Amino acid sequence: MKVQPTAQIDSQPVTMEGAVGCQVRWLIGERDGAPNFAMRQFEVGVGGHTPKHSHPYEHEVYVLEGAGEILDGDTPRPFRAGDVIFVQSDEVHQFRNTGSAPLKFLCLVPNSSSSLPVKMAPECGDAR
Amino acid sequence: MKVQPTAQIDSQPVTMEGAVGCQVRWLIGERDGAPNFAMRQFEVGVGGHTPKHSHPYEHEVYVLEGAGEILDGDTPRPFRAGDVIFVQSDEVHQFRNTGSAPLKFLCLVPNSSSSLPVKMAPECGDAR
Repeated sequence: MKVQPTAQIDSQPVTMEGAVGCQVRWLIGERDGAPNFAMRQFEVGVGGHTPKHSHPYEHEVYVLEGAGEILDGDTPRPFRAGDVIFVQSDEVHQFRNTGSAPLKFLCLVPNSSSSLPVKMAPECGDAR
Repeated sequence: MKVQPTAQIDSQPVTMEGAVGCQVRWLIGERDGAPNFAMRQFEVGVGGHTPKHSHPYEHEVYVLEGAGEILDGDTPRPFRAGDVIFVQSDEVHQFRNTGSAPLKFLCLVPNSSSSLPVKMAPECGDAR
């Protein structure tokens, strides 16, 4: 059993193309022996955003702090702390911090995601 | 894509033997089309607790509000808001609210959990 304050876990910059002002902590993952899915915590600075992209696996998201919007394809949908977001496989999406404070959310993915391709939306670069 | 305030989602009492003062909201699950795992939010009242039990699937937990302890077998381990907890398959565990305010946490489980048996720890009743 692992019981740990989140702040003790390494925070790393998100280097994926299209990410601006994003940090990630891997709270629970395969290194902990998690057999099915991983829990990550993202922090997006004021004005920052994740890549606009899609992939053949889902996101299960809980918004911890702050406010923002998620692009659902090209449609912005606002959210704030306490909201839950479910992004299905292959849905184009982008998280944007539209507030005046850091945006923090949990984003969980199946372990299979590590071997599946990510497709960038056109405005962020070529498909890869 | 689903974007929804948590408070809009039905809160139901946890009726499992050994649960005291526990409510649960299924934030994301198979009904939403989630293919691999489910996100639930638990609220445990002051002095309340979940069953002391084990099962052949993991829990990935994030503590949202309040403070408590988790029994790791028979050893209490304190936690508070902002902590992450990973309970591996077959580890005996029980969440207890030891604070003076409601305890809220997310607890995610693989979809396979719905068809797997739960084993109650002796002080909470017979194995089933």
